[in-house]
Amino acid sequence: MLKVGLLGAGRIGQVHAVNIAGNLRSTLVAVADVYPEAAEILAAKYGAEARSVNDVLNDPDIDAVLIASSTDTHSDLIEAATAAGKAVLCEKPVDLSLERAKACLEAAAQTGKPVMIGFNRRFDPNFGALKAASAAGEIGKAELLSITSFDPAPPPVSYIKVSGGLFRDMMIHDFDMANFVMGDRPVSIRAVGSSIVDPEIGEAGDVDTAVVTMTYADGKIAVIKNSRRAVYGYDQRVELLGSEGLLQAENMLENTVVKSTTAGVASAKPTYFFLERYMPAYAVEWEAFVAAVLDGAPMPVTLEDGIAALAMAEAATESAKSGQAVEVTY
Amino acid sequence: MLKVGLLGAGRIGQVHAVNIAGNLRSTLVAVADVYPEAAEILAAKYGAEARSVNDVLNDPDIDAVLIASSTDTHSDLIEAATAAGKAVLCEKPVDLSLERAKACLEAAAQTGKPVMIGFNRRFDPNFGALKAASAAGEIGKAELLSITSFDPAPPPVSYIKVSGGLFRDMMIHDFDMANFVMGDRPVSIRAVGSSIVDPEIGEAGDVDTAVVTMTYADGKIAVIKNSRRAVYGYDQRVELLGSEGLLQAENMLENTVVKSTTAGVASAKPTYFFLERYMPAYAVEWEAFVAAVLDGAPMPVTLEDGIAALAMAEAATESAKSGQAVEVTY
Amino acid sequence: MLKVGLLGAGRIGQVHAVNIAGNLRSTLVAVADVYPEAAEILAAKYGAEARSVNDVLNDPDIDAVLIASSTDTHSDLIEAATAAGKAVLCEKPVDLSLERAKACLEAAAQTGKPVMIGFNRRFDPNFGALKAASAAGEIGKAELLSITSFDPAPPPVSYIKVSGGLFRDMMIHDFDMANFVMGDRPVSIRAVGSSIVDPEIGEAGDVDTAVVTMTYADGKIAVIKNSRRAVYGYDQRVELLGSEGLLQAENMLENTVVKSTTAGVASAKPTYFFLERYMPAYAVEWEAFVAAVLDGAPMPVTLEDGIAALAMAEAATESAKSGQAVEVTY
Amino acid sequence: MLKVGLLGAGRIGQVHAVNIAGNLRSTLVAVADVYPEAAEILAAKYGAEARSVNDVLNDPDIDAVLIASSTDTHSDLIEAATAAGKAVLCEKPVDLSLERAKACLEAAAQTGKPVMIGFNRRFDPNFGALKAASAAGEIGKAELLSITSFDPAPPPVSYIKVSGGLFRDMMIHDFDMANFVMGDRPVSIRAVGSSIVDPEIGEAGDVDTAVVTMTYADGKIAVIKNSRRAVYGYDQRVELLGSEGLLQAENMLENTVVKSTTAGVASAKPTYFFLERYMPAYAVEWEAFVAAVLDGAPMPVTLEDGIAALAMAEAATESAKSGQAVEVTY
Repeated sequence: MLKVGLLGAGRIGQVHAVNIAGNLRSTLVAVADVYPEAAEILAAKYGAEARSVNDVLNDPDIDAVLIASSTDTHSDLIEAATAAGKAVLCEKPVDLSLERAKACLEAAAQTGKPVMIGFNRRFDPNFGALKAASAAGEIGKAELLSITSFDPAPPPVSYIKVSGGLFRDMMIHDFDMANFVMGDRPVSIRAVGSSIVDPEIGEAGDVDTAVVTMTYADGKIAVIKNSRRAVYGYDQRVELLGSEGLLQAENMLENTVVKSTTAGVASAKPTYFFLERYMPAYAVEWEAFVAAVLDGAPMPVTLEDGIAALAMAEAATESAKSGQAVEVTY
Repeated sequence: MLKVGLLGAGRIGQVHAVNIAGNLRSTLVAVADVYPEAAEILAAKYGAEARSVNDVLNDPDIDAVLIASSTDTHSDLIEAATAAGKAVLCEKPVDLSLERAKACLEAAAQTGKPVMIGFNRRFDPNFGALKAASAAGEIGKAELLSITSFDPAPPPVSYIKVSGGLFRDMMIHDFDMANFVMGDRPVSIRAVGSSIVDPEIGEAGDVDTAVVTMTYADGKIAVIKNSRRAVYGYDQRVELLGSEGLLQAENMLENTVVKSTTAGVASAKPTYFFLERYMPAYAVEWEAFVAAVLDGAPMPVTLEDGIAALAMAEAATESAKSGQAVEVTY
Repeated sequence: MLKVGLLGAGRIGQVHAVNIAGNLRSTLVAVADVYPEAAEILAAKYGAEARSVNDVLNDPDIDAVLIASSTDTHSDLIEAATAAGKAVLCEKPVDLSLERAKACLEAAAQTGKPVMIGFNRRFDPNFGALKAASAAGEIGKAELLSITSFDPAPPPVSYIKVSGGLFRDMMIHDFDMANFVMGDRPVSIRAVGSSIVDPEIGEAGDVDTAVVTMTYADGKIAVIKNSRRAVYGYDQRVELLGSEGLLQAENMLENTVVKSTTAGVASAKPTYFFLERYMPAYAVEWEAFVAAVLDGAPMPVTLEDGIAALAMAEAATESAKSGQAVEVTY
Repeated sequence: MLKVGLLGAGRIGQVHAVNIAGNLRSTLVAVADVYPEAAEILAAKYGAEARSVNDVLNDPDIDAVLIASSTDTHSDLIEAATAAGKAVLCEKPVDLSLERAKACLEAAAQTGKPVMIGFNRRFDPNFGALKAASAAGEIGKAELLSITSFDPAPPPVSYIKVSGGLFRDMMIHDFDMANFVMGDRPVSIRAVGSSIVDPEIGEAGDVDTAVVTMTYADGKIAVIKNSRRAVYGYDQRVELLGSEGLLQAENMLENTVVKSTTAGVASAKPTYFFLERYMPAYAVEWEAFVAAVLDGAPMPVTLEDGIAALAMAEAATESAKSGQAVEVTY
C-alpha cells in the first residue's frame, strides 16, 4: 500500500485525490495547500490529515508525494521531496525556466528517487491505442504527425501573464505527445503565432493561436496546431501518416445520439474540457505511477521527458519571435 | 446515509457493490450469498459483513436491500424485504411467471415500501439523451421505434434452459426500453424467432434470433431485433422516427482511433459486453435509487414497469409459437 | 449499337433518356407518350423521333424498348413488345395484379425475348458492395436482414388511391432488395401498418408506416421498415447480420462537411430523394441491360424477380389486414 | 452554343472532352495534340475534327479554347489564344516561372479576352459547401485553416524532375484552396520538406513530404500538409477554425458500407485519386466557364488567381531551402 501526501488541493489536486483514494494499492494520508481550509476540506473527504508541506515531507510513513501546486513551486518541491526520500509524481510543467528544470533534474537524480511528470494525455485510451498501433508497425514507418489541440475558451489574461506563454503552458502537452507518439525528438522547430482570438492576449505578450512545425533527423515532420478557443469544446486529435497508412485519434463525444431533421444531421459535441475528456486518463496515470513505485518498474514519463518538452517550448517561443527555424538542444 | 444489504455476490452483485461503496450517500453494510465464501470475499473488500439473508432482512439498521440473486428468488425476496421495511432495488426480471410477479406487486404495494427494478439501460447516457430529445419534442411526434440489441455470444445451453427463454431473459430489456422511450405501452405484439445461431438452442425449446413488432393504440409501431451472437461485440442501438425527424443512439466504441491502409479504413469495435457498455449506467442507476429513497422522490423504474415488460415477453413468446398477433394485457 | 424506343416521357422516362443517350453502345431512336408534346420535347433533345407506341413496336430497326409509362400499361406493353421481337427493360412493378403479372410472364416467355425489370436499387454501389461482401462470405452465413426505407414526404392522396398500396408501390423495392441481398425468398410474411403520418391515407385504405417481418426456410429472418415521411431526406439503409459479422450500407450524404459550433456538431443530410440518390444506379442499370442484350448475358433482374416481389407485396397486404402470418407462394 | 477547341488530348484533355460534349451549351469542334493520333481518336469520339493548334486558333468559328497541354506550353498558348480572340480555360499551373506568368497576364489582359485557370477543387461540392458556410458567417471570423492533401502514390522520378517541384506542381492546388477558402492572401510563408517517402526524389532535388505555414495581415494562420504517398487513397481534407466554430470537409468514400467483424469495424477507403474524387468538379468547372463566357459573368478563377498561387509556391520553395520565413509579393 502506497502512502501518499498530496501537495495542492486545487482543482487538479482534487482530481488526483479521487484516484489516490480509489486505487486499491494507494491511500491518501495527508494534504497540504497554501490555503489551509482547502487542504482541510479535501483531507476530511478522504479521511486524511491536513498538514504543512514540511510535515508531509518529514513524515517517514509517507512513501510518495503528488505535486499539484502552482508551477513556480514544482522544481523546489521535486528537489525537497526526493531529498526527503519520496517518490514523486509532479504535474507539468517542471518549471518555466529550462535552466532551473535542468538543475532540478540533476538534484533529483542524485537522490535516486523516482520522479514522474504528469503528462496525463499519454494515458488517454485513444492516444494510447494510436501509439500502440504505430509501435506495432501497423502503418509502417512514421512520416508526418499532426496534432490538433484547442481549448474551449481562453483563460483570464491575468493567468496568461504568469503562464509562461502558450508554448510553455498549453502546447507543452502537445510537445510531449509528439515525443510520445514519434518515439523521437525533433531537431528543429519553426513557430508562428498570433493573438487573433483576443488582442488583450497579444498586449500581454502572448499568442492565442499558433502553429509549430518540427523536423526530425531522419526526415520525419510534425505539426502542432493550438488555439485557445474552440467554442464547440475541447478539440484533441492526433493524426499520424506512415509509409503504410494513416492513424487518427478522434475526439470523444458527449454521447452517441444523432438527430436528423430538416435542419440537418446533428451529433453531440466533444467532451467539454480536460476534466471531462481526461478523467479516465488521470486514473490510469495514477495506476501507472503506483505500479512503477511499488513494483520497481521504470517510470512511464520521466523528468527528462518533462525537460525535453520544455526545451521544445523554449525553441518555439524563440522561433515565433525571430521568424527563423531554431535548433533544439536537450 | 443509506445503509445497504446486498443479496447476491455474483458478477452483477460485484458491480453493484462498487457503486454502493463509491456513492457518497450510501454504504455497504452486509452481503449475503448462497455461497458464503463469495459473500465473505465481497464483504471484506468493502468493510461490510457477510450474513445470511435473514440476518440482513432482520437488521433494523439496514435501510435498503439490493437483490442481485438468481431470478427465481426475486419475487420472494422483494416480498420479504418490503415486509421487513426495506426499500428495494431488484435486478430484472421480477419473475419468470407473470402471475407470480403480479402477486409480488400486490404484496409489496401493501407494505408501502418503494421498489425499483434494475433496468440499467434507462440510465445509459446515450439512451437517456435520446429519450430526453424525444420528450422535448425535438423530432415531433414519435412514429416508429427500432431497437437493435445483440449479445456478443450466446450463453451456455444449460443457462438457456432455465432462462425463461430469449423473450423473458434478453428481450425484456428491450421491452422496457421501448416503454421508456415511447412513454407508452403496446397493445399488440407479433414475434418471430429461429435458432439459426445454434440448433442446440432450438432443441432446448428456445430461439436465438428474434424480431418482435409491436403496435400502439395511436398507430405508433415498434420493432425489436435480438440476436444472441454478434461476433464484433455488444450491439446496442435505438432509433426513433418522428414526425419531424430521426433520433439514433449509436454504439459506444472501445476507442476513437481510425486506421486507413490499403486494406481499408478500420475503427474500433463496440465495447464488448454489458459490463463494459453499461458500467457508467449502473452507477447512475444506483444514484437514482439512493436519491429516490433518501429524498422521497418517485422511483424512476417501478415494479409495475418490471411487470409490464414481463407481460410483453409473455405475449411475444406466445406469438412466436402461434404465428398470430397477441393482445397484451397489463 | 442498341437502337432503343422509349415508352413514357415523364420524370423517370427522362432519367432513362439521359442514360440511353449517354451510353456509347445504345442510341435513342424514338419516344412515345400519351402526351405527344412530352414525347416531342424529349425526342428533340436527343435527336430522336416522337412516335406512337405502335410505330415504335412495329419498327424493325428498333432492338429494345424501355417501358417507363404508367403501371397499368406495363403488362400489356411487355407482352406487345416481346411479341414484336424487342428486348424489354420495364419499370417496376410488373403489374398491381399478381395474376395478371404471371400471365404476362407466360406470354413473354413464349417469345423467348429477354425482359428485365427496373429494380434500380440493385445497381446502387453501396447495396452492390454489401451484397458482394456477403456473397464473398465476409460475414459468414446470413442470419438477420434489416431494411430501412423511408421517403422524404408522402405522395398526394390521389396517387395513393391508384398506387396499389404501400406494400405494392413502395415496399416492393425492399422486397426485391431482400431477395437480392439474401439470394433467397421468404416462406412467410407478417405485416403491420398504420396511417400515423396522415389519417387521409388511412381513409384512402392505405398505410403510411409499416413493418414487415419475413422468415426463411433455413431460419433466416428479415425485417423491412417503411415510412412515407422522413423529413430529413431519403433514408435508404440495409443491414445484414451474419454468423461472422455485420454489414451496413449507410445513407449517402449531400456533402462531407461537418460544422461544430456551440449548438453541436452538424453534418449534411442524406441526398433528398430517389433521383439524387439513385441517379448513378440508373446509369449502371442501363449499362447492365445493354450488356445483357448485346452480349447475350443473362438478365441481372428478371421478370420472375418482379413477380416474386409482387407476390411478397400481396402477402404483406393480406397479413396487415388479417393480423396473421401469411405463407407466400411464388 | 459555345464552340470549343481542345488543346491537349491526354488524360486530363479526355476528362474535359466529356464535359464539353455533355454540356448542353457547349460543343467540341476541334482537338489538337502533339500526337496527332491522340487528337484524332478523341475528336472522332465526339464528332469533332483533329487539327493543328494553329488551325484551331485561326478558326473564327471557335469561341473558346481549353488548354490541357503540357505546362511549358501554357503561357504561350494563353497569349496566342487570347490574341486570336478566344476565351480561355487553362489547366493549372499558368507557368513554372512566376516572371513568365506575369508577362502572360499582361499580354492576355491587353486583349480583353476572359481567361480562367482550372483550379478544379474550387468546384468540389464539399469544399464549395465549406466555403459557402464560412462566407455566410456560420463559424464567425476565420482564424486557422488546415489543408491536408496527400496523393496516393508518388509520380515517376522522371516526372518529378520536370515538375517544378512539389510546391509548384502539387501544393499549388492547396495554395489556391487557401486563397479560395480564406478570401485573402498570406503575407509570409514558412516551409519545411523532406524526401522521406523516396530518397530518389530528394536526389532529384525535390521533397515528397512538406508542411507550409502561412500568416495573414490580420493574424489568421494557415497550414498545408502534403505527402506524395498515402497508400489508402487520395486524402483531401480542409478544416477551418473560426471564432464561432469549426468547419471540416472530409474525404469522399468509395461507398458507405461498414463491416463489423471480430477484426474490427471496416469502412471503404477514400476515392482513389483525383479523377475519381474530382470528376463531378470538372463538370461543374466547365459549366462555370461556359456560363461566364456566354452570360458575361466574371470568371470564377482568374489568371491573377493562378499567378497568386504560383507566387506562394515560389515563396515556399525558397523558405524550404533557407529555413526562414519569406514574405510573398503578388
